[in-house]
Amino acid sequence: MSESKHETFMRAAIEEAHKGLATGGVPTGCVIVRNGEIIGRGHNQRIQQNSVIKHAEMDALENTGRLRAADYQQCTLYTTLSPCSMCSGTIRLYGIKNIVIGENKTFQGDESLLRSEGVLLTVINNSECVDLMNQFIREFPEIWNEDIGE
Amino acid sequence: MSESKHETFMRAAIEEAHKGLATGGVPTGCVIVRNGEIIGRGHNQRIQQNSVIKHAEMDALENTGRLRAADYQQCTLYTTLSPCSMCSGTIRLYGIKNIVIGENKTFQGDESLLRSEGVLLTVINNSECVDLMNQFIREFPEIWNEDIGE
Repeated sequence: MSESKHETFMRAAIEEAHKGLATGGVPTGCVIVRNGEIIGRGHNQRIQQNSVIKHAEMDALENTGRLRAADYQQCTLYTTLSPCSMCSGTIRLYGIKNIVIGENKTFQGDESLLRSEGVLLTVINNSECVDLMNQFIREFPEIWNEDIGE
Repeated sequence: MSESKHETFMRAAIEEAHKGLATGGVPTGCVIVRNGEIIGRGHNQRIQQNSVIKHAEMDALENTGRLRAADYQQCTLYTTLSPCSMCSGTIRLYGIKNIVIGENKTFQGDESLLRSEGVLLTVINNSECVDLMNQFIREFPEIWNEDIGE
């Protein structure tokens, strides 16, 4: 996939992160893409829905709805932040093989485990993703620590 | 913890699995226990809520609400079925250190990975848990395969 397509879909994931921030939540966002089309999107819902399981990736996967295993294999997941062990475990469960990561500087999840199982990870290190997280972590360190189980 | 306490809490998890079955869903259940008290419970919600992220463990953790890391470390998670990579990843994220598993004969999740990170797993191999799953898998193989990403 060309860099410009990555940018288009990461832009949509960043829009989700901004929606999360605007509603008082952790600014991470995610979109699920199949055949060049966004089929699901979501953002972290810890604060908004009082949910400890709805990281952005989980929210996007739930919003995408029920897919067959063969469909997941054709999907690319765009996430603004490196996926934690919960989200990585979900990616492994459903056999999603392509992940594009906005940034892994403020937090790095289970990237080694994913790679060891043949998942292709593309880390963009988008400065807007980094800035969103740095500002949130500075302002709300307790919520952030809670979100990553620390 | 004594065997009888394990049985009491696994009985509550099995009740959750029966609730799931009675509402047309995958018959797995889970309870979260802290200081000898159930603080959250849930069951698989794939069918009932059209959710691909709400395995029993995830539903129970969401229903438990937001806890601090120190609280999760005092919890024991009782699940009727060996936790898949999504649920194991969530257990790892929140640092839950004690897991009691009803059975791992019909499905075995990320037990090695959990053990390698110091999580104590106790597998009961309760025959009712096995029977519930065997019957469901026989009757609804497609839903079951979808639930485990196959």
